Amino acid sequence: MSELTHLDETGAARMVDVTDKAVTSREARAEGFIAMRPETVAMIVDGEHPKGDVLATARIAGIMAAKKTHELIPLCHALNLTSVKVHLTPVSDGETGVHLEAVCRLTGQTGVEMEALTAVSIAALTLYDMCKAVDRGMVIRDVRLLEKQGGRSGHWKRG
Amino acid sequence: MSELTHLDETGAARMVDVTDKAVTSREARAEGFIAMRPETVAMIVDGEHPKGDVLATARIAGIMAAKKTHELIPLCHALNLTSVKVHLTPVSDGETGVHLEAVCRLTGQTGVEMEALTAVSIAALTLYDMCKAVDRGMVIRDVRLLEKQGGRSGHWKRG
Amino acid sequence: MSELTHLDETGAARMVDVTDKAVTSREARAEGFIAMRPETVAMIVDGEHPKGDVLATARIAGIMAAKKTHELIPLCHALNLTSVKVHLTPVSDGETGVHLEAVCRLTGQTGVEMEALTAVSIAALTLYDMCKAVDRGMVIRDVRLLEKQGGRSGHWKRG
Amino acid sequence: MSELTHLDETGAARMVDVTDKAVTSREARAEGFIAMRPETVAMIVDGEHPKGDVLATARIAGIMAAKKTHELIPLCHALNLTSVKVHLTPVSDGETGVHLEAVCRLTGQTGVEMEALTAVSIAALTLYDMCKAVDRGMVIRDVRLLEKQGGRSGHWKRG
Amino acid sequence: MSELTHLDETGAARMVDVTDKAVTSREARAEGFIAMRPETVAMIVDGEHPKGDVLATARIAGIMAAKKTHELIPLCHALNLTSVKVHLTPVSDGETGVHLEAVCRLTGQTGVEMEALTAVSIAALTLYDMCKAVDRGMVIRDVRLLEKQGGRSGHWKRG
Amino acid sequence: MSELTHLDETGAARMVDVTDKAVTSREARAEGFIAMRPETVAMIVDGEHPKGDVLATARIAGIMAAKKTHELIPLCHALNLTSVKVHLTPVSDGETGVHLEAVCRLTGQTGVEMEALTAVSIAALTLYDMCKAVDRGMVIRDVRLLEKQGGRSGHWKRG
Repeated sequence: MSELTHLDETGAARMVDVTDKAVTSREARAEGFIAMRPETVAMIVDGEHPKGDVLATARIAGIMAAKKTHELIPLCHALNLTSVKVHLTPVSDGETGVHLEAVCRLTGQTGVEMEALTAVSIAALTLYDMCKAVDRGMVIRDVRLLEKQGGRSGHWKRG
Repeated sequence: MSELTHLDETGAARMVDVTDKAVTSREARAEGFIAMRPETVAMIVDGEHPKGDVLATARIAGIMAAKKTHELIPLCHALNLTSVKVHLTPVSDGETGVHLEAVCRLTGQTGVEMEALTAVSIAALTLYDMCKAVDRGMVIRDVRLLEKQGGRSGHWKRG
Repeated sequence: MSELTHLDETGAARMVDVTDKAVTSREARAEGFIAMRPETVAMIVDGEHPKGDVLATARIAGIMAAKKTHELIPLCHALNLTSVKVHLTPVSDGETGVHLEAVCRLTGQTGVEMEALTAVSIAALTLYDMCKAVDRGMVIRDVRLLEKQGGRSGHWKRG
Repeated sequence: MSELTHLDETGAARMVDVTDKAVTSREARAEGFIAMRPETVAMIVDGEHPKGDVLATARIAGIMAAKKTHELIPLCHALNLTSVKVHLTPVSDGETGVHLEAVCRLTGQTGVEMEALTAVSIAALTLYDMCKAVDRGMVIRDVRLLEKQGGRSGHWKRG
Repeated sequence: MSELTHLDETGAARMVDVTDKAVTSREARAEGFIAMRPETVAMIVDGEHPKGDVLATARIAGIMAAKKTHELIPLCHALNLTSVKVHLTPVSDGETGVHLEAVCRLTGQTGVEMEALTAVSIAALTLYDMCKAVDRGMVIRDVRLLEKQGGRSGHWKRG
Repeated sequence: MSELTHLDETGAARMVDVTDKAVTSREARAEGFIAMRPETVAMIVDGEHPKGDVLATARIAGIMAAKKTHELIPLCHALNLTSVKVHLTPVSDGETGVHLEAVCRLTGQTGVEMEALTAVSIAALTLYDMCKAVDRGMVIRDVRLLEKQGGRSGHWKRG
């Protein structure tokens, strides 16, 4: 049962011991998409410009959630992120909605991909919350890691 | 700018005033899916049975996250859920992975769809965290509301 | 020592027992001011319009802080606010800065003035944080209750 | 729009990237004042001595709030303070009330002025909460940074 | 596997559904003891009087922890306690230490024994923390429910 | 009054200043016991094997609580644990119940005994919560430090 690092030899959950891992510079980039009706996208942007606080609220929610990752994901280590950025790009052509991307950085002993994925997820849920009265059928799609640097596993990039 | 209930007439974010809404019985059901390689699914289940604490950890994370929704989604009201259930179903055929479903209940003045969606999202991220050392390419898909009852907007079910 | 409701007869702190208080509709309004240099105000607004996310971020911080009041103020009761609004008004004439006002509502057994005061304080600190690199000397002034309704003590308004 | 470090070139909020900043010893000292009626001050102190738990409760609230600063102020970095002190000085002459001062220390990459200011603000709100049943008109004044050391910006002291 | 209410028929953890339970007045009383050396007890009290903030700090910690119970105990319902009291009694004769008792009240759908037990446990740990530099061998004993009223199970008192 | 490091010379609580302490490798091990009726133990284990999610839930609760220690114990420093393990051993002979042990590790400036003790306490309370419907008389006993390494005070082991 020991192939999974988060389980001990009896299958019990544990926080992985990183005491002896090197402190290195880490970065992770994750993305996601929330599909909305075109009218909903139009309600939150006016061409290139945000209309009201919707995008700002989602951005702030994503940044704050990145800092809370270890309180949400039981076996994540607490860590002091040195940088969090959340980019929201409304998409009015093709499948309409908002594309989300988050980038987290840290100089530390563990990777920060969970932080980037959590920022994307919570920012997407915040968009859902603010638009749900007009568009209940929105769907959050394709939340995934794009790239990861630093640490023993080195550079990983989605193929 | 007033089509969105979470913005005032100047576009500023606000928590919607529900002081005068009726207290009714509410329920919401949401789902999502995390796509994994077949070998990864096999690591967390042995046929119908869980192997180790992976599924239990994700279930607990989802339940605890439902209770934290108002701390994560800026304009959500705090509320005292009367029931949270998180169902995880490993899928070994077709697209392999784990299907997630959450059901939340409340007797109160606001709906609980954000709580159900947050439970699904955080449970999925927890599965990601526990399996990422063996399967970095997992993708969280199709997080969405399935059904919603109670309140002025009545019964809604995904078509 | 018993004049203060939050102390028992030995002077020990306690959470006041509100079990038998009536459930009534409550509202509180509080204000504050953060004094900034005129150039700093100009950086966050362009006439009547916000420049960038500064005001939105402070607004969100204030709303989220109102929901956390009972985690910050040791003897405050947890409660489920039904409405929170935070209004920020940049002031470019006379003493320059930003005026803050928060309004909280609840149907419950305790007043919500601490929630309104906490929203104002944290929104002000957020403005301080975002502007401190250009204006370290900002001062937060005159955080105070303006008005309070509901409950046994009835209507109170600052004279 | 780039004069403010917390906004990117499009005006979007971000957590400032401190990955490459030096780890140095940091200290910040902040103050504030809560104006109370003389009778209210007399209720919480007996000459030089505290009466009951009021001052202790506010002190604890301030220390705990300093540790929560990054959860309250959206763009603040999480950090592990190495020292927090909160000094409360009842003032019975002239303008009566309680003077508050907080000192925070850290060996790290970011300053700790927000932590000191947050400690002062929440300690003041806690005093307000405990005394509000007898003195609703209290006012929190002049919350501000007094001194700051460490980091690239060096030593700053209020003139 | 269904004897335990917190597990469903497959053994999966769930938050018990209390949607249909009656709202009644609830109260729970719990106790515990932390054994200390006589010299340690003497450091925190002078006869009947507290010396410094040790007891006040533990009392505040216990009260605040009661409010956080649902964030700590995964399947506990969030609830809005209407009263929390924590009594600390230093014991200088016989087995020396501090006796702890907590009383919590609520008008609601679930019992509050976990809140009372959590208050006792965290208050005891806070005493441990403040005294550990002088007395590493302290032991927390006999944390248990004393009495419970309200709800379908009626009045229960330790025999 | 200065024998206790958490009080200043006036008896006021403070967070101990560790700014100048060395960064060393730290470890702490704590234990506790929850006494249950034999039938209750039988409900959560089937011989050596767990029945349902009870033990997993308590383990997760303990690990998550260790990360929250500084939010619960007022004067504890926030720190980024590098490892947390919680071991639960059901005991079916002699005094029946569950034995709990937690081990925490850190490379840092402060010890981690409070984190290990908090993990044990919250895991025990979680077991209490999940079994209380069938066994209200359970008692949590003998929560205490077993061993501590690292830091100026060196190696300490319970005699």
